[in-house]
Amino acid sequence: MSKYDVSKFRNVTVALNTPFQKDGSVDVEAVKAVSRYFRDKGIKQMYVCGSTGEGFLLDTEERMLVAETVVNEVGKDMNIIVHVGCADTRHSCILAAHAEKIGAAAISAVPCVYYRPSEESVYRHWTKITEAADLPFFIYNIPQLTGFNLSMNLFNRMLENERVAGVKCSSDPAQDILRFKLAGGKDFIVFNGPDEQFVAGRLLGADAGIGGTYGAMPELYLKMDELIKRSEWEKAAEIQNIVTPLIYRLCSFPSMHGAVKGIITLDGCPMGDPRLPFLPVSVDDPDLKTLYQDIRKAVEETKEW
Amino acid sequence: MSKYDVSKFRNVTVALNTPFQKDGSVDVEAVKAVSRYFRDKGIKQMYVCGSTGEGFLLDTEERMLVAETVVNEVGKDMNIIVHVGCADTRHSCILAAHAEKIGAAAISAVPCVYYRPSEESVYRHWTKITEAADLPFFIYNIPQLTGFNLSMNLFNRMLENERVAGVKCSSDPAQDILRFKLAGGKDFIVFNGPDEQFVAGRLLGADAGIGGTYGAMPELYLKMDELIKRSEWEKAAEIQNIVTPLIYRLCSFPSMHGAVKGIITLDGCPMGDPRLPFLPVSVDDPDLKTLYQDIRKAVEETKEW
Amino acid sequence: MSKYDVSKFRNVTVALNTPFQKDGSVDVEAVKAVSRYFRDKGIKQMYVCGSTGEGFLLDTEERMLVAETVVNEVGKDMNIIVHVGCADTRHSCILAAHAEKIGAAAISAVPCVYYRPSEESVYRHWTKITEAADLPFFIYNIPQLTGFNLSMNLFNRMLENERVAGVKCSSDPAQDILRFKLAGGKDFIVFNGPDEQFVAGRLLGADAGIGGTYGAMPELYLKMDELIKRSEWEKAAEIQNIVTPLIYRLCSFPSMHGAVKGIITLDGCPMGDPRLPFLPVSVDDPDLKTLYQDIRKAVEETKEW
Amino acid sequence: MSKYDVSKFRNVTVALNTPFQKDGSVDVEAVKAVSRYFRDKGIKQMYVCGSTGEGFLLDTEERMLVAETVVNEVGKDMNIIVHVGCADTRHSCILAAHAEKIGAAAISAVPCVYYRPSEESVYRHWTKITEAADLPFFIYNIPQLTGFNLSMNLFNRMLENERVAGVKCSSDPAQDILRFKLAGGKDFIVFNGPDEQFVAGRLLGADAGIGGTYGAMPELYLKMDELIKRSEWEKAAEIQNIVTPLIYRLCSFPSMHGAVKGIITLDGCPMGDPRLPFLPVSVDDPDLKTLYQDIRKAVEETKEW
Repeated sequence: MSKYDVSKFRNVTVALNTPFQKDGSVDVEAVKAVSRYFRDKGIKQMYVCGSTGEGFLLDTEERMLVAETVVNEVGKDMNIIVHVGCADTRHSCILAAHAEKIGAAAISAVPCVYYRPSEESVYRHWTKITEAADLPFFIYNIPQLTGFNLSMNLFNRMLENERVAGVKCSSDPAQDILRFKLAGGKDFIVFNGPDEQFVAGRLLGADAGIGGTYGAMPELYLKMDELIKRSEWEKAAEIQNIVTPLIYRLCSFPSMHGAVKGIITLDGCPMGDPRLPFLPVSVDDPDLKTLYQDIRKAVEETKEW
Repeated sequence: MSKYDVSKFRNVTVALNTPFQKDGSVDVEAVKAVSRYFRDKGIKQMYVCGSTGEGFLLDTEERMLVAETVVNEVGKDMNIIVHVGCADTRHSCILAAHAEKIGAAAISAVPCVYYRPSEESVYRHWTKITEAADLPFFIYNIPQLTGFNLSMNLFNRMLENERVAGVKCSSDPAQDILRFKLAGGKDFIVFNGPDEQFVAGRLLGADAGIGGTYGAMPELYLKMDELIKRSEWEKAAEIQNIVTPLIYRLCSFPSMHGAVKGIITLDGCPMGDPRLPFLPVSVDDPDLKTLYQDIRKAVEETKEW
Repeated sequence: MSKYDVSKFRNVTVALNTPFQKDGSVDVEAVKAVSRYFRDKGIKQMYVCGSTGEGFLLDTEERMLVAETVVNEVGKDMNIIVHVGCADTRHSCILAAHAEKIGAAAISAVPCVYYRPSEESVYRHWTKITEAADLPFFIYNIPQLTGFNLSMNLFNRMLENERVAGVKCSSDPAQDILRFKLAGGKDFIVFNGPDEQFVAGRLLGADAGIGGTYGAMPELYLKMDELIKRSEWEKAAEIQNIVTPLIYRLCSFPSMHGAVKGIITLDGCPMGDPRLPFLPVSVDDPDLKTLYQDIRKAVEETKEW
Repeated sequence: MSKYDVSKFRNVTVALNTPFQKDGSVDVEAVKAVSRYFRDKGIKQMYVCGSTGEGFLLDTEERMLVAETVVNEVGKDMNIIVHVGCADTRHSCILAAHAEKIGAAAISAVPCVYYRPSEESVYRHWTKITEAADLPFFIYNIPQLTGFNLSMNLFNRMLENERVAGVKCSSDPAQDILRFKLAGGKDFIVFNGPDEQFVAGRLLGADAGIGGTYGAMPELYLKMDELIKRSEWEKAAEIQNIVTPLIYRLCSFPSMHGAVKGIITLDGCPMGDPRLPFLPVSVDDPDLKTLYQDIRKAVEETKEW
């Protein structure tokens, strides 16, 4: 069992997009601005430099820069979880140690990148990372991108590590959440990964959620969370019925990263384009504008639910 | 939209196992007995000759025999949905026409068996089947066994057919239920397929469920259904937390088919062994006996919920 | 090691398409005609009721009828290998016993259909089939359709059975042929499965090949085989360079089964349409006619190689 | 068609392992030593910082350091192909420009890392990389690690770029080599990727091969290449029959990277351990020693073939 008090992590967690300048470098001022933007929207927790944050497209220095900027800007108001997973253990540990140093609230890592290491390899990889920072560690299971599906066997081994505090469960089957939650127990945080079935994950035991489309419509995720906390499951599911089609529309653009950045930009917080190979989405794209308006309308309509 | 009134199909639906004699032939008397067994347990609807029913291991005559026996025995008390899907359209249509003749309540079919036909092929296949019987038709989507994942495009084409009345959604991602339900509408039945996440499927819009482990613990599924109808979602999820580990235990035997048959046998309704290649599970297996007792205990403990 | 003398099986083996009448029933006279057609083309071995033969679309009686018709018509001139694999062991064994009774040269079976049984299940399934007929048994490994990939462990267990005489290896990686051949040894037949890389499979140890596009251009496969036997590998590869694009063109029609049947029909041996869900291909389709002419041209041009 | 004369690239190409020091940093002296080691073994071409070279475990500076060291050490004797593929286009272009500056012979890149971008994204990614260096560009197709399978459509688009000079084809089906070679033409280099079926790839049109196990037994690959050039295909296949089981043994260690490094170390050129998550393999491991001896024996026995 985790040695940390994890109760503070049960929050709607925005997977933060990383804004870039025109020349392709990290836009530090925009990182600060978007951090405040989400804080002011009522977001209490963010996940930085993960899949949504284009973390795998950044080098070690850039990842440190983003993490540090976010923690410095809003670290007092929010829990900042830094994704430190790299293909290699060495750089992952460097990022982990850095996250502790700058005052991040927690770290997290995918099991592997590109290569398909053995279960034993991943165990060693994650264990080394936990040794590099005295911070809660959240496993990140996302088999559709890593090709590595977390087994109960490895999961149970990881549970013996007192720095392991939870799992971000992004696999498709909602039942994965149930089995990780049953094994992890009450004081272990399971984050729902697939935004399209947030309420289902919550019903099966997820304590909270982390997602890449939260940034485009944080109010709707906050509202679902609020309704769930009030045990109004059917009302929450009604919002899910609105949210999921909006997600499918976000995914219909040349890149989802570009579309989410476009929505945030249209909402008043300029994000720039994603880094290639993610294709840009123009804020002048009429479909994006319509989508933005539909999101705002949905937010308005469900405000009082 | 379907021309049928589908409201009567919103039931906990047992995917019926087919009992065999020692010599390997269908045990007609046991088919009758197990049909009454489920009726007496309060089950209002059954799905026969599907994946659970070893339908793909039976020849056309055997499938007709099973369907006819069930309908004759309990057709007045229950809706009998006959799975008529074969690898070829010809035999599927023969089974469909037979199902109508014997008074089945509905038919259903997988898109394909063994082969990986094109979307257009499946469209023609399903359409021919619907033309063979004036009965509600339930699409059966189970990509993990067929290799064919129902697209929204094909789904929407099928919705134009007024005999298409619903879909049995057995794919892993719970969100599939949401998107089929949104497209199908209020008067279209979506059945949850994955038993391990029944309550999640229901929350995302499934009207009911069909499952291969219902037979081993029908009372628990009936109870979840009852709690959901009373909007007691968290209570229903608590039962799911009991049910899912029981399912994993059923799956740990040499065959799940054998284990479910063993549980039903231990409950007083002899089922015999599954047909090879499904391996038999002995009712003397101490793990099976323990599992049976744990199921009964769970049923007792949740009776008054 | 197999107790049979398997030397006679090292032949270019046509996977025979099953011709149907307009009403959809098996066309017995056409079965006879197409059997003679391939015999007269110089084919010494055929594989009936397999994937190409729409074997999974036929019921048990139809499969017996086809097998019996072919054996009676050309069994004295050719080795007839009958595919007897069904989803269940029971019907597979009935077909195996029947194959022996009618005088087939060998039998063969896929590991599973639709269901995904365990390795132990498949072992029991195949073993039962070999017990049902005193005939050489050829394992059929085709993971892209069955979802079951033959492991070296199961392969080695099967090798202990003296009726097991070879394997039809239809998986994508050419190296599978090499490893099965090394384990099986000199007196064990490995058939190349993927027609698109016939010469590669042969170079890595395949004794012969079985294929679904051989029927459309038997002369080209016979020529490759001849060149290989003369150790003219580069010449054989030149023919492969002609054959593979022709295969891709066959696969570009609404169904490959329909296209191959169309080519055979255009060559003078009427085959009718495939059974649904395989879509028909009209012999009036100009692309099919062009393809037929290109095949004939290729046959002419390589005749004297 | 490529504007470069690519004839010089038809060589047995060692995918170079990157040696590390005990502290985990790149061992520059060992990089030099192993470069000379392969040159002295008669290797004329190397592929650096690819999958075998742990390229994805190195940061940008480390990758530059390795490439530069190799080019400086043996660039006059060998063609050095630098793998420059990163998850993002920006760093890939930096590496490409650096490769040109240091005098590399060519560059190469995977389509994507971790993320699953669209075909259009990959087209833009690869195109940008080719624009960053006036060097022959070799596409790297390895779907089992990237999840991205190069389509003929994208391949044909890439062929229009005159800097595109070839493809490293590491997918399983040998036929992929045939179809890329037919489309690319005589003056386009196709490298065989899967070492286990090197001769099959060559027969289907591969001009040469690049492989991660060449380093452990370069003599055997050079011998296969020599025999193929003498058109002694069956003799070459006999060596493949020796090589492939040796590869399977390399893959049976805790990590293949560690095993190959161990073999090179045992042969007199110290490589150190791979970077985590790849597990180390001790040079004292008796199985590794036996494998090394078996490799040397195979080299001796086939020397005069």
